[in-house]
Amino acid sequence: MSTAGQVIRCRAAVAWESGKPLSIEEVEVAPPQKDEVRIKILFTSLCHTDVYSWDAKGQNPLFPRILGHEAGGIVESVGEGVTDLKPGDHVLPIFTGECKECPHCLSEESNMCDLLRINTDRGEMINDGKSRFSINGKPIYHFLGTSTFSEYTVVHVGQVAKINPEAPLDKVCVLSCGMSTGFGATVNVAKPKKGQSVAIFGLGAVGLAAAEGARVSGASRIIGVDLNPSRFEQAKKFGVTEFVNPKDYNKPVQEAIVEMTGGGVDRSVECTGSIQAMISAFECVHDGWGVAVLVGVPNKDDAFKTHPVNLLNEKTVKGTFFGNYKPRSDIPAVVEKYMNKELELDKFITHTVPFSEINKAFELMLAGEGLRCVIRMDE
Amino acid sequence: MSTAGQVIRCRAAVAWESGKPLSIEEVEVAPPQKDEVRIKILFTSLCHTDVYSWDAKGQNPLFPRILGHEAGGIVESVGEGVTDLKPGDHVLPIFTGECKECPHCLSEESNMCDLLRINTDRGEMINDGKSRFSINGKPIYHFLGTSTFSEYTVVHVGQVAKINPEAPLDKVCVLSCGMSTGFGATVNVAKPKKGQSVAIFGLGAVGLAAAEGARVSGASRIIGVDLNPSRFEQAKKFGVTEFVNPKDYNKPVQEAIVEMTGGGVDRSVECTGSIQAMISAFECVHDGWGVAVLVGVPNKDDAFKTHPVNLLNEKTVKGTFFGNYKPRSDIPAVVEKYMNKELELDKFITHTVPFSEINKAFELMLAGEGLRCVIRMDE
Repeated sequence: MSTAGQVIRCRAAVAWESGKPLSIEEVEVAPPQKDEVRIKILFTSLCHTDVYSWDAKGQNPLFPRILGHEAGGIVESVGEGVTDLKPGDHVLPIFTGECKECPHCLSEESNMCDLLRINTDRGEMINDGKSRFSINGKPIYHFLGTSTFSEYTVVHVGQVAKINPEAPLDKVCVLSCGMSTGFGATVNVAKPKKGQSVAIFGLGAVGLAAAEGARVSGASRIIGVDLNPSRFEQAKKFGVTEFVNPKDYNKPVQEAIVEMTGGGVDRSVECTGSIQAMISAFECVHDGWGVAVLVGVPNKDDAFKTHPVNLLNEKTVKGTFFGNYKPRSDIPAVVEKYMNKELELDKFITHTVPFSEINKAFELMLAGEGLRCVIRMDE
Repeated sequence: MSTAGQVIRCRAAVAWESGKPLSIEEVEVAPPQKDEVRIKILFTSLCHTDVYSWDAKGQNPLFPRILGHEAGGIVESVGEGVTDLKPGDHVLPIFTGECKECPHCLSEESNMCDLLRINTDRGEMINDGKSRFSINGKPIYHFLGTSTFSEYTVVHVGQVAKINPEAPLDKVCVLSCGMSTGFGATVNVAKPKKGQSVAIFGLGAVGLAAAEGARVSGASRIIGVDLNPSRFEQAKKFGVTEFVNPKDYNKPVQEAIVEMTGGGVDRSVECTGSIQAMISAFECVHDGWGVAVLVGVPNKDDAFKTHPVNLLNEKTVKGTFFGNYKPRSDIPAVVEKYMNKELELDKFITHTVPFSEINKAFELMLAGEGLRCVIRMDE
């Protein structure tokens, strides 16, 4: 019996207040409205942004809320006006969107959609400013327009990438956010040429995805920079050839990198959000052609500061958001890269837990253990 | 009778001490040594860098010295090992070089030759660390390896661009430095697409050459930014469509530009060297695709400072040196652009003076009058 047009009652993990374990509740999920899609989530994974918004330090707390934004699922039903998705389509919901009509979507160079750009403060659907989730008639806030910690969720069609139905959703779900962000930062923005050297600042999941991008690009040296030396062993699997710990030097790490590379690396990708790492990542690239790409999200009060001669010596610094991928237009092709074995994803998935144990995923991340924990919704 | 291999006695304008008028003297110019070329200079023009080194504030003073680096001339003789130039070739000496062997010269992306990169502190030829100029046996220092304020000069072959002999040297001499720097910053680095908007900071000669680059690229709006409103009338000839004076706003000029363009300009080019203008030039570009290019040379103690979110919103900032042109490989083609009327140069030449009145060119520049003053060596 079709559930289309009906309210669906299902399980969701609700964050009732900041920093407290999520609670699995029965929620009501309203049917999708105009330009919306209701998705049955099969797998979701935990990303730092979920933990950041759950912890809610330095942000507007918005509770109760259903978090989650890295996921894979199947379209259950579509709302009015949705023509390019139908029930049964395999999809990845994405935390940022692509309306296909604004100047950013019409530009080949940008993916920062005016209508659906990431908004951590928004807790409702843009169509009517209301939530599709409720418990006993009381609304539960959305998160990033995705709220994938629910067996069913409602997402704006502009935030849904339709992918190859043969792709294993328990693997490609991590392309919804972190892996695409890091991989795209390297292959779409830093664009190292075959044989060039790349420094990666931060060897967490996003940094290792950036390293995977460097490996796929044929980089000759991939220098991993991290304050935690225990990360180097794991990083080798992602193509990192050398490890630099800033703590091991009594000078700025960029100077050490310039020395070990005879003038600087060809490309660098910053994946920590530390302002000092951003400056180091810029200053460690070679004059004449070096390109530094910033991925990590800084604190509000940070200032990127460098001597302008570093720029005049023909170095470039640029930032990227979601690896410069347009969610609907580009992500299906990234899934194909995985299917064609051009891009490895399995090594990022270090843990899996059943939905009922979703709080374990938070514990693992808070303990800094592993890279991605995939949550199986059917368990 | 050939002068090859002989010492040539000729006139040169010698700077005996900082800030004092140049003095026309008879100098002896030794024959070119290995990898050197002796050039008969026909036209030279005055650039800010000449005045800066003549004034010698905040630098190592190096006197007596023969300044000058924007020029056109004809090869008189060549030294040992020089095979790609011969007497009679029309050439532009360039203040920076291209050895064609170092990593920068071998890179498609860089023009910052390791061997012959600009060095304002060097006063001798690199071959033997000696000067080719003397008066009564006492050496006179070179400047930038070019010293074009002399009827004859000796230049390293890596700093000599061989150009079309039909090109009028009294016009294309300005391509030796300033015009190529500004034009190249736009067409080689900022690369605006047809119909895009470009902001130019600083409407001096280099900034107007950057505007010329925007005009040639088909920019729809060229916004000139300068503290001196009297420069706007002239700037219109260079394609500048709108004028913004930071003094007219009680907010940072970047905010005014973002408002008048509905989100920011597509490209900006900074040609003042003011650190505040650099920051404004970066912050006034559109998120998602904006590119800011820095040309102006800053003070030693300046810091380029911006909130990193400006970068993460997919803006790019990069610097350029000599418009990213490789002197020998690329400048001949820029001369061809002038010959094909794709690039206008005549409008930059606002004054000419005979060599005997070279100090008038300094006076004009110090008074901020005109753009380029061409000095005719034969008068």
